[in-house]
Parts: sequence; structure tokens; C-alpha cells
Amino acid sequence: MQKKSFPLSKVYSLLEPGPVVLVTTASKGRQNIMAMSWHTMIEFVPPLVGCVVSDRNYSFGLLKAAKECAINIPTVGMAKKVVGCGNTSGATIDKFKTFRLTPVPAARVGAPLIKECFANLECRVADTRMVADYCLFVLEVVKAWIDTAIKNPQTIHHFGHGNFMVAGKRIKLRSKMK
Amino acid sequence: MQKKSFPLSKVYSLLEPGPVVLVTTASKGRQNIMAMSWHTMIEFVPPLVGCVVSDRNYSFGLLKAAKECAINIPTVGMAKKVVGCGNTSGATIDKFKTFRLTPVPAARVGAPLIKECFANLECRVADTRMVADYCLFVLEVVKAWIDTAIKNPQTIHHFGHGNFMVAGKRIKLRSKMK
Repeated sequence: MQKKSFPLSKVYSLLEPGPVVLVTTASKGRQNIMAMSWHTMIEFVPPLVGCVVSDRNYSFGLLKAAKECAINIPTVGMAKKVVGCGNTSGATIDKFKTFRLTPVPAARVGAPLIKECFANLECRVADTRMVADYCLFVLEVVKAWIDTAIKNPQTIHHFGHGNFMVAGKRIKLRSKMK
Repeated sequence: MQKKSFPLSKVYSLLEPGPVVLVTTASKGRQNIMAMSWHTMIEFVPPLVGCVVSDRNYSFGLLKAAKECAINIPTVGMAKKVVGCGNTSGATIDKFKTFRLTPVPAARVGAPLIKECFANLECRVADTRMVADYCLFVLEVVKAWIDTAIKNPQTIHHFGHGNFMVAGKRIKLRSKMK
């Protein structure tokens, strides 16, 4: 992979803006991709992410079984593939083949990374106490990768029903935060 | 308030794109505003929102005590006020006065709404089981308001340290989701 290791302490800067992500899972020879927007940072270091993977999704079973996944962040050029992944089920198709996405082995988890995404976060399930009630998993990011060639990744942000906002201009305001 | 009631079933479309929000709280004559990016939808109906309010924030005590808050969504024109709210503490200043934000009574909760925000979500704390470990509150949105005059609100999305992305162009892709 051409990507470089990305500091775990900066992972929040990738997810905090709220992009749609593609969650990859693998278990017992099956793998899948799921489009997801319902995620939040929970802690900076180690980076913890809360995310909702519905038990109606094929990925739910794979994630529960493997206790690992990857969060892959696409840009607007992949929007059609993202909607494709969101509108189909891994129970009936291989989304990597159908949407021509390239699985790449991860360093620390069994789930594949999506080569075409500019950032990949390898995750282990850290807490399942909220799964029964809300399908809310707490993930710990154990390894992160970034394509440093992409300077201002145009992430996409979902409003629902295939409507997205594309990341616009960047602004910097004086902040006292460290 | 000039705003109109917004269907609870559509609340997800406001938060799913990941904007910075301003959380307002009130308890025993004190009120506060906190900038927050760590939130996720958890359920469509009733709309449940997971959000992290650190116990280092003055708002934490108010939220725990009142078990209510409001999520107010600002646009880019309010960016300086948002950073101001994020860089100061309600323990020492009245942020409504300091940043010239207008508190408006809510319909169903004690926390004030911020008039200048284009959307306001009145929330009750629905689950505190994850507060001790992660400062993660599960909120139920019980009433929502929107300024229908603002067609494409330019929300802001935080990368950290005062760096924001402004909501860019909108795209619509064919989706099978209902």
C-alpha cells in the first residue's frame, strides 16, 4: 500500500467532520462493506469511535463474530460506489467485486482495507455493552493509514436518501485549544 | 420564534452530515453553551443522539443535573462565536452575553434555544449508562425547530484546532433507501 502510517492521536481529525465511511468486516471467509454515517469520536487517545451497525445489516454478524473491522474514508469520486454499497446486502453479493473496490490486507486486523479510500482505520471492538439496546459498538482504532498525496480530501456527508454534501472550503479560526 | 416545527422523523438529516453544534444547558439559574462535534445519530424514531460531553466541561454538571439540553446548529456566519464558545468556560463567563447569542425559551425542556442557529433540537437525557466510562450521553430529541428561510445551511465541520470545513455543494445520487 502506498499509504503512510498516520498518528493515532490525530485520528479524530478524520472522523470529527462527519464523513460517510465504508466499514469493512471479515469472518470465516466472508467479507463485506457497509456505508455508515452514524459514528462519533469518543476519546482522543487511544482513539475510540462509537458507531451504529444495525442488526439488519449483514455486517452486524461479521462484526460481532470477528470483533474487528476497518473504517475506510471515501472521497466524492467514489460516491456512486458508496451508494451502491449502501443499497445492497453482503448476504447476496460480493461488494468488492460488484463495485470494483480493492481489498488490501490490514496490518493488525483481519478485515480488509479498501485501497481506493484515502484513509483507513484498523479497529478492534472495545465495548459491546450498548449493542443489545442500540447496535452501538465502541471501537478502538489500533492502526491508521493515510494517502498523503491527497491534500484536501473531498469527503461526502449524508443527509439521507442519496443526498450528500461535498466537503467545501476550509477556514481556520484562532483557537486556544491544544 | 420565527422557526417552524420540524418532523422528529427527519431530525437525522440535520445531524448525520456531522456539523459542529452548540449544546445549551440550564440548571438552578445557570445556563451555558458548549461547542460539540462528537455526536452521532443512534435511532431514527424516536430520534436518539449519542454525544460526548466531557466531565472537564462546565456543561457536564448542568446536563447531569437537568437531564435536558438543546442541540443548536450554527452556520458559517457564526463560526467566530462557535470558536469563542469552544475556547471559554461557563464557569467564569456568561457565553450568551459574551458572544451576543440570544436565548429563547424552549417548548419542552428547560434549556434555552439559541435564536441565531437555523435549527434547534430539544433533548432529554435518555440513557446515562455510558457516562461514567465515556461521558457519552444518549439523548432523545423531543421537539425540533427549523428556520425554513435558510435553504442550504452552510454548516461547519471541525477538523480540530480551529480548522473547519464549510458545507460545500450538494449532490443527489439514486438511492433505493426508503
